[in-house]
Amino acid sequence: MRVRKKPGAFEALLEFDNYYIEDPSSHRGKWSACFGNDNPIYAEFGGGKGGFIIEMARRHPDVNFIMIDVITEIMLKAAEKADKTKLPNLKLVKVDLAFLDQIFAPDELSRIYLNFSDPWPKKKHYKRRLTYRGFLDKYKEVLKADGWLHFKTDNKILFEFSINEFMACDMIMQNFTLDLHAEEQPWNVMTEYEKKFSEKGMPIYRIEGKFRL
Amino acid sequence: MRVRKKPGAFEALLEFDNYYIEDPSSHRGKWSACFGNDNPIYAEFGGGKGGFIIEMARRHPDVNFIMIDVITEIMLKAAEKADKTKLPNLKLVKVDLAFLDQIFAPDELSRIYLNFSDPWPKKKHYKRRLTYRGFLDKYKEVLKADGWLHFKTDNKILFEFSINEFMACDMIMQNFTLDLHAEEQPWNVMTEYEKKFSEKGMPIYRIEGKFRL
Repeated sequence: MRVRKKPGAFEALLEFDNYYIEDPSSHRGKWSACFGNDNPIYAEFGGGKGGFIIEMARRHPDVNFIMIDVITEIMLKAAEKADKTKLPNLKLVKVDLAFLDQIFAPDELSRIYLNFSDPWPKKKHYKRRLTYRGFLDKYKEVLKADGWLHFKTDNKILFEFSINEFMACDMIMQNFTLDLHAEEQPWNVMTEYEKKFSEKGMPIYRIEGKFRL
Repeated sequence: MRVRKKPGAFEALLEFDNYYIEDPSSHRGKWSACFGNDNPIYAEFGGGKGGFIIEMARRHPDVNFIMIDVITEIMLKAAEKADKTKLPNLKLVKVDLAFLDQIFAPDELSRIYLNFSDPWPKKKHYKRRLTYRGFLDKYKEVLKADGWLHFKTDNKILFEFSINEFMACDMIMQNFTLDLHAEEQPWNVMTEYEKKFSEKGMPIYRIEGKFRL
């Protein structure tokens, strides 16, 4: 997503200290304490403007949610939106996923969401795709043994790449679909992108995977 | 495929006794003897007019091929086509796949091809689809431990169903593609259907799977 640089965005973000966690590595292995309960923790990597995770947090009060992104301006929009709903089970974290293991201890997450991740369309950039096996290895470390990775995208090439990466990592998979909206899925929370693309009649691809022990 | 009933087709088929095996169950466990060598045996289930398997047999003289179908008239076309090329490594068998274990002994096949199988579009008919788990269980019995099942189709719903069946059977998968012809694949032999559909620009879906021991 291209974002206009906004002066003072970071300072504005710091104001939302109910949601925005300035020093996430200090919570490593102690996220339950940060939420004040032992509920499972689901994280979205690359959460964008937060539409998905805010609605998920609203629907599932017994789950704690953490949205991770790298762009201050986007995170600020998510914080502003979250602030309107006063959700105690949502935190926002700005970090590069390369440092994931410095934010979460092994088995600390119960689920990971990847929604409409950047497709990095040039072949030479495939290692930056969030479903590249190098990233999957990192996810495996922080996900609980029975924790699922949920991935959806409108990008055919990225989906094809991702399924092959999941296969290469010998992941267990389920609920494969080439057209998520072919039937009504009341459990499915749409992202901002997803609404736009599916309204145009473009298919949304989706898969769930977990790591073999 | 709808086929016009042709009087005398079965008698005509019997004439091609170089290719057509009238009593396949008598070869169970002894197909190598039937071919006169110990080369690996690849089978195509639902071979249609034989375009695929005849070209495969021509390209790969060190592999034995068996095409299985249930429709006499189709098998006759395959036999007529095969007869023009004089291929020693090809046999045609007419049998319902429900009786697969009466035709092949365990581990007798090294590969299975499913090309453009009947999609059985009505949901209530899903058990007739050749990638239904009930069939997969049968394939597992006759396939060698390292034997792959290669599946391609132009039918999105059938492909989606099939991948989910492969996953439900915890199969190992590789070479997943949503558009086989996006890049040139010199190894790929096209079926009659495939030529027609891919010329229209319709994507061909493909996957390879094998069974876990």
